[in-house]
Amino acid sequence: MKKVKVAILGCCGVLGQRFVQMLNKHPTFEVSALVDLYVGKKYREATTKWGKGSGGFDESIPNYVADMEICSADDIDRDVPLVFSGLPPNVAGPIELDLAKKGHIVVSKAKDHRLEEDVPLVIPEVNPSHLELIERQRKKRPWDGAIVCAPNCTTSIFTLPLKPVFDEFGVEEVVVTTMQAVSGAGYPGISSLDITDNVVPYIEGEEEKTRLESKKILGSIDKPADYKLASHCCRVHVIDGHLESIFVKTKQKADAEEVKRLMREFPGTGLYSGPKRPIIVRDEVDRPQTRFDRYAGEGKSPYVGGMSVTVGRLRNEVFGLSFISLGHNTIRGGAGEAVLVGELLEREGYV
Amino acid sequence: MKKVKVAILGCCGVLGQRFVQMLNKHPTFEVSALVDLYVGKKYREATTKWGKGSGGFDESIPNYVADMEICSADDIDRDVPLVFSGLPPNVAGPIELDLAKKGHIVVSKAKDHRLEEDVPLVIPEVNPSHLELIERQRKKRPWDGAIVCAPNCTTSIFTLPLKPVFDEFGVEEVVVTTMQAVSGAGYPGISSLDITDNVVPYIEGEEEKTRLESKKILGSIDKPADYKLASHCCRVHVIDGHLESIFVKTKQKADAEEVKRLMREFPGTGLYSGPKRPIIVRDEVDRPQTRFDRYAGEGKSPYVGGMSVTVGRLRNEVFGLSFISLGHNTIRGGAGEAVLVGELLEREGYV
Amino acid sequence: MKKVKVAILGCCGVLGQRFVQMLNKHPTFEVSALVDLYVGKKYREATTKWGKGSGGFDESIPNYVADMEICSADDIDRDVPLVFSGLPPNVAGPIELDLAKKGHIVVSKAKDHRLEEDVPLVIPEVNPSHLELIERQRKKRPWDGAIVCAPNCTTSIFTLPLKPVFDEFGVEEVVVTTMQAVSGAGYPGISSLDITDNVVPYIEGEEEKTRLESKKILGSIDKPADYKLASHCCRVHVIDGHLESIFVKTKQKADAEEVKRLMREFPGTGLYSGPKRPIIVRDEVDRPQTRFDRYAGEGKSPYVGGMSVTVGRLRNEVFGLSFISLGHNTIRGGAGEAVLVGELLEREGYV
Amino acid sequence: MKKVKVAILGCCGVLGQRFVQMLNKHPTFEVSALVDLYVGKKYREATTKWGKGSGGFDESIPNYVADMEICSADDIDRDVPLVFSGLPPNVAGPIELDLAKKGHIVVSKAKDHRLEEDVPLVIPEVNPSHLELIERQRKKRPWDGAIVCAPNCTTSIFTLPLKPVFDEFGVEEVVVTTMQAVSGAGYPGISSLDITDNVVPYIEGEEEKTRLESKKILGSIDKPADYKLASHCCRVHVIDGHLESIFVKTKQKADAEEVKRLMREFPGTGLYSGPKRPIIVRDEVDRPQTRFDRYAGEGKSPYVGGMSVTVGRLRNEVFGLSFISLGHNTIRGGAGEAVLVGELLEREGYV
Repeated sequence: MKKVKVAILGCCGVLGQRFVQMLNKHPTFEVSALVDLYVGKKYREATTKWGKGSGGFDESIPNYVADMEICSADDIDRDVPLVFSGLPPNVAGPIELDLAKKGHIVVSKAKDHRLEEDVPLVIPEVNPSHLELIERQRKKRPWDGAIVCAPNCTTSIFTLPLKPVFDEFGVEEVVVTTMQAVSGAGYPGISSLDITDNVVPYIEGEEEKTRLESKKILGSIDKPADYKLASHCCRVHVIDGHLESIFVKTKQKADAEEVKRLMREFPGTGLYSGPKRPIIVRDEVDRPQTRFDRYAGEGKSPYVGGMSVTVGRLRNEVFGLSFISLGHNTIRGGAGEAVLVGELLEREGYV
Repeated sequence: MKKVKVAILGCCGVLGQRFVQMLNKHPTFEVSALVDLYVGKKYREATTKWGKGSGGFDESIPNYVADMEICSADDIDRDVPLVFSGLPPNVAGPIELDLAKKGHIVVSKAKDHRLEEDVPLVIPEVNPSHLELIERQRKKRPWDGAIVCAPNCTTSIFTLPLKPVFDEFGVEEVVVTTMQAVSGAGYPGISSLDITDNVVPYIEGEEEKTRLESKKILGSIDKPADYKLASHCCRVHVIDGHLESIFVKTKQKADAEEVKRLMREFPGTGLYSGPKRPIIVRDEVDRPQTRFDRYAGEGKSPYVGGMSVTVGRLRNEVFGLSFISLGHNTIRGGAGEAVLVGELLEREGYV
Repeated sequence: MKKVKVAILGCCGVLGQRFVQMLNKHPTFEVSALVDLYVGKKYREATTKWGKGSGGFDESIPNYVADMEICSADDIDRDVPLVFSGLPPNVAGPIELDLAKKGHIVVSKAKDHRLEEDVPLVIPEVNPSHLELIERQRKKRPWDGAIVCAPNCTTSIFTLPLKPVFDEFGVEEVVVTTMQAVSGAGYPGISSLDITDNVVPYIEGEEEKTRLESKKILGSIDKPADYKLASHCCRVHVIDGHLESIFVKTKQKADAEEVKRLMREFPGTGLYSGPKRPIIVRDEVDRPQTRFDRYAGEGKSPYVGGMSVTVGRLRNEVFGLSFISLGHNTIRGGAGEAVLVGELLEREGYV
Repeated sequence: MKKVKVAILGCCGVLGQRFVQMLNKHPTFEVSALVDLYVGKKYREATTKWGKGSGGFDESIPNYVADMEICSADDIDRDVPLVFSGLPPNVAGPIELDLAKKGHIVVSKAKDHRLEEDVPLVIPEVNPSHLELIERQRKKRPWDGAIVCAPNCTTSIFTLPLKPVFDEFGVEEVVVTTMQAVSGAGYPGISSLDITDNVVPYIEGEEEKTRLESKKILGSIDKPADYKLASHCCRVHVIDGHLESIFVKTKQKADAEEVKRLMREFPGTGLYSGPKRPIIVRDEVDRPQTRFDRYAGEGKSPYVGGMSVTVGRLRNEVFGLSFISLGHNTIRGGAGEAVLVGELLEREGYV
């Protein structure tokens, strides 16, 4: 079978490295272009900080890309239908637009286009049908390519377990407090002097993202979901893994045991890079814990660890439900989810 | 002027050490008995881990206690009216009862008697009038002494800034997520293998305390306050300082700027160990931070740093108010608050 | 082929867990007895802290032992020739003696018998011939079993790269300063309050071990090697991995490039759990680093990561040679090395 | 008495902030110029990161500088005899030269001029007489001002306790391995992703500094001291405080107890910012420890904490002596030492 050619934008950064790793020995995707600033250099020369910006990386750069030359976005061939973007915010916007105009489908982890009305914002297990927006997007803009976004890491990690609750009981109010990893700020990112023995209770722009993105994902393609959400996003001293404290007021009374069952039965996509069980529910009183559960996830890909979200401490509280949700911010909340969106696009016939 | 004689129970532990430090050169209290298991040893011999279980300690044991001999609770003289208890939970209960029977007034940091109906649970700036319960307690039991409690650290740190909101606007619902320091678990307490690069989203018994204690403190001596409170208590990798994310639904609409003003104007007690401003409100978008703000507090005592609570990110959210509150768990949330209760008892004529 | 039955002493501790993991799907060893205090419990019930005391563990307890019942040392069958001991010091001594008397060959990670004259202290790549001491031991004691020891973690990590230097140029003086991981102290081990933002420049008994054990290993079975060694053993805030600063005065002038070549060519054992290259030499100016290099090692076993020692900054200094050596203290310096000794015993026909 | 006017170069950086703090309420120095890039801004506006790059800072910027305007080096008045330089390396060199030409005496913490033959490199307790080089410098260059340097932090922390050993017994060889704090790399400096759960065994240029600077300090103004020194400089995860493992081969046999006595009796300078006892020797087997001993130091200034070096584990080893030395890198090894040099210059009549 012929593989689908793909390109990676921002291939040397933390997200780019994760794309490179997750696409290593991929059964249906074949990396044919690596895009970053160091045009003309070999990937191994340009990526001197391989594995430094997040954990769980193979010890060395995969052979399949080591000697590939970095190119510019303009160099991506017409016959590369799919482009994964790990570009930084603001940089991403115009480059992604340009590639969509040229006929590529861009799957982006950047925030720039996420909230545009005709851009699907997709967690493959939660709202795969939002890909229909591609049709609308192509009519409106008009172009042959497309821009499809994966949500912000923090949003993804609580919206996934919120989905079965939302579907079965309805949601009125959500209160979120996050304890996020330093890898979320990229590399070098957070100074050791700023986070050692410290908590920083603010991450620029993050709280707005949790609010707007989760409603878009749980809503229809015509209208965001209608609930109230407030959040505090905090940085704590962990390398990887966002742990989130969630309180939910449901429309109808939700029994904790029933919710656990629904979460456990919540189906995976069956796609190569997706976990069999997207939501793992633990009954121990003190789980999930960041260091011990961030690599949860089983499935076909050797890189599936970190693609499941782990839920714990799920119980009925005075207002309704409360639970802890933990996910790996650079895998489930990062490149892993974008790769999964790419695989969904392939299955749905877009590429 | 003659000083009031005081005893310290559990003098060698983290709380006990803090009592020892805060009572160093105290203008009206004089430590005349040190109680711990190592009866007969000198304090300097028994306290080999001075300053290890929390930060901000003087480099060495204060001279005034260094050569004092440890005694047992039975050895406390009749003429010592005030006893500070830093005993561990469950151990504290019967010993404190016994001392109250003998006529001492015990100010305890242990949970054992906190929720008993006739035991005042006091934050001196918030509910000093609850000391009236002593009268009721003496009638009921009957004894000449008394048991008075200071609240759990976590409770103290959010209940203090909640007080002006409660008084002015009324409170319907509170959602609390905490990021607590390892020193809260005592010494040696939390293993480095359990908290390095990790968050533990559970602390035994802590969530119930936040719920029951805050309502008792904000209520009258006859009835707890009537609001709903849900909480998640988490341990993060900081040495000292509990940072808490708070969401409040008020009965009447509370404007954030008005709330800031009320908090800033919230009066101190004027007592020796209390801060001039119990609540410090910061306007920077990323404060308070644990390492930089945990020693906030100005006042008469050289040990007043850590007695103020710092509030930040105060704003109106969809449900009402939200803010971050930070306090030092072994000072404001620990021995410091108990010393302040002792000083309040002195001013009110109980000792 | 029939597998060799083996038992694990102290199977629930950090070392015991590592034995369990390294023997998972082992081609020639079959775990037939698990020994610990919780006699009668299933392994999964007794090992509630699986994976907590060190990193790199599979997410859950391997199936092959999960339902096996813990037994006592007395319950080990006669037909189990090989016993791996992860018992704590002082506890280990008499139990291991007893098992040797009963005819078992005990491979121990405990210090108790390491320095006895007739006990082989073996790093399989360095001094496999020391197994000859078994003969002498059996004559002297007399028994049919044997006690064979693997060295202390710290010793192992510098003695392995010292071996080719010792053989080729001779060694006169060695100065060692270590920066050791908290997992070396077991679980719960080091309090977070003792190591956060701290270095502890002392580990009880460790410096003497580095001195005596390395000379025994590099010497003949009749006489320890003759050089001077001084060391400072320090604890730093890393989870796993001992990084060691080494200065060596050689008898004959040793050229740094030649030493690098000798280290790189230093042969592995060819055994299942051993790395192809026991010593990895890196040329980058800032490697090895603890977090990035502690899992170095390639070979047949899926658990071989952590079995290589990584050397870096190798250069000629005023006195001779200096370099940094890094190894995983609970794998190369722990159960991994003991398993390797077990495999060597099998190849040499002892079991 | 009229105070000596001083200027601070690089006043907004970590060292600059420390100068500002140590000169707060200084009895004989008066800060009259603050130099940094943000010319025209008030100090409080320009220094938004006050206290972030190292610990032990007062909570807020001292009043005396808060509203002072930043100026450029060219704006320093002729009547300011003394200039403290906390400029970064390479930037410092030409600016300091220029100021010396204009007649100012510059006390610099930058490396740029340290090793020039006619520039005194001074630890006031160790080699105050090296100030004589100023005369030679003024003849050679020729100018009316002067450049005087304080050594690199790492050098200072081991050279101070080495001095009484050098004087009494002579030194042949020194082996140094350091465990240095992240604050040594400035702010933001070291990424949290580079040092969490890690040791980095390399700091650019540091090892050469330890070698050349210590010999210049312990030598005469005509010739460096003659001994061999080798070192490994490592970065560990502590905020402040360099802990150093030292092995010394002395010319004459040095008894450990005698060395302890000599170190304890080693005299302070009597200057305002200097500690009464520059070297504190501890007998406990596990001290000094970075977090607990880095603020050692007693004296006249309220900012003297961190000006003493703490020595421990001093003993005779096979080669001679070994010990651990710990000092605060941004105080004793930083601005504190430069201030002390300034006070020495004042006492000796240079300003």
